[in-house]
Amino acid sequence: MMENNQAIGIFDSGLGGLTVIRELLKALPNENIVYFGDTARVPYGNKSKKTISRFSIENADFLIKHKVKIIVVACNTSCSLSLNLLKKKYKVPVVGVIEPAVRKAVERSRGLRVGVIGTRGTIKSNVYNQALKRINKRIKIFSKSCPLFVPLIEEDWINDDITLNIGRRYLSELKKREIDTLILACTHYPLLMKAIRKIMGREVELINSAEEVAGHVKELLELSGGLRGAKQKGRCLFYVSDEPAQFVKVGGKFLGRKISCVRKV
Amino acid sequence: MMENNQAIGIFDSGLGGLTVIRELLKALPNENIVYFGDTARVPYGNKSKKTISRFSIENADFLIKHKVKIIVVACNTSCSLSLNLLKKKYKVPVVGVIEPAVRKAVERSRGLRVGVIGTRGTIKSNVYNQALKRINKRIKIFSKSCPLFVPLIEEDWINDDITLNIGRRYLSELKKREIDTLILACTHYPLLMKAIRKIMGREVELINSAEEVAGHVKELLELSGGLRGAKQKGRCLFYVSDEPAQFVKVGGKFLGRKISCVRKV
Repeated sequence: MMENNQAIGIFDSGLGGLTVIRELLKALPNENIVYFGDTARVPYGNKSKKTISRFSIENADFLIKHKVKIIVVACNTSCSLSLNLLKKKYKVPVVGVIEPAVRKAVERSRGLRVGVIGTRGTIKSNVYNQALKRINKRIKIFSKSCPLFVPLIEEDWINDDITLNIGRRYLSELKKREIDTLILACTHYPLLMKAIRKIMGREVELINSAEEVAGHVKELLELSGGLRGAKQKGRCLFYVSDEPAQFVKVGGKFLGRKISCVRKV
Repeated sequence: MMENNQAIGIFDSGLGGLTVIRELLKALPNENIVYFGDTARVPYGNKSKKTISRFSIENADFLIKHKVKIIVVACNTSCSLSLNLLKKKYKVPVVGVIEPAVRKAVERSRGLRVGVIGTRGTIKSNVYNQALKRINKRIKIFSKSCPLFVPLIEEDWINDDITLNIGRRYLSELKKREIDTLILACTHYPLLMKAIRKIMGREVELINSAEEVAGHVKELLELSGGLRGAKQKGRCLFYVSDEPAQFVKVGGKFLGRKISCVRKV
């Protein structure tokens, strides 16, 4: 079914999904990747299920036109609100960021006290709770939306007292509840890893969904014989729905290297 | 040209324009109003001129279908990037939030040292600078983008130490420059009036663009004979591009009263 040289398709509401590519490049350096960032309509976090489903289908259709062999939905809000819809609609495998992170969290949590942080949309959707409970009903889940994290990251106040203070306010309740594992349920949040670790302490395991989904994609392609045969490095193509300038400027930080080959569609 | 009973049309990227309606209801309580909030694509602040121009035309077309007698562009980013385009395209008068605020600022500033705060898009566009210089070339302008103000307001951290601290960081340079007048070049910012006043001190004149544009619309309708004759209160119709729930919930604070009659388009 899969063809080796076809690209891995990945979409996100904007920049956040680049942290997923960063991990994919580590796990699967020889794969070709096509990325679509919906920068004209970003952010998805506070929008309704109906609207997000429509956006997600449009984004996936765009990737399908590029003949991708798998679709990675890197946006937590899209996953929370429309992953099942996408899975039904397309023939290629559709992979979200939620399941891999949830599985890892359950695997790592010793006391079964798991925290989840994300945008308002993700938290309100309750999808992480449902996914965690599906694996183990006894898990205690404590979730908290952190709507200021994304704009703080985009303001580049990453190692900053203000960000630490805001983080402390958002996370204080999770700390009080003595969670042992915390899922970063937003692909922007890995950039705040240091601050979050500082606030939560070393004993709390942080689950980076970008890392987990990359591992999951690798596994899936290996199992299905879908890996690209070639030994040379793969190519990344980036598409965005708004002018690329801001994407290129800020995106480098998410990707961990300079972004080239960005086109507006 | 204008017909008295036609509504005042007003659009914004989301909620912010409700502070303009709040002032319009004070200035012109008998007018009918049709509002369009583009909540599916909000925010406009970081998006490109081309994208914002396309969105703005779609929004204005929607209002024209409702036979409005005037279009108020309540979104600073739309005004900065596409007001001239809209003015050329439509027969009804198109009024932005920039000119009225700029005129007032020049009128009030004694030392001709004027500050401007807004979203990244508004500040980067330089439109306020150009408009101020057009009236008086000797004006010294100091501008600063404050991208966290909108999410802080939407988080409802309005009377909050974190917001004060972030405000202090954003505004410290303007304070150092000894501005005597500060234009709030974003329709969200009137909700932070207290905090901004506290930071800037009583001696700095704050210009609320929502208030100024309402005065300007009143003047324009009076001069052109376009006022609604009826003595009973006008009706407000609200349209949004995403599900109305969040708009109704948060919008009340912007409008200063409960929102009813919201429809999704």
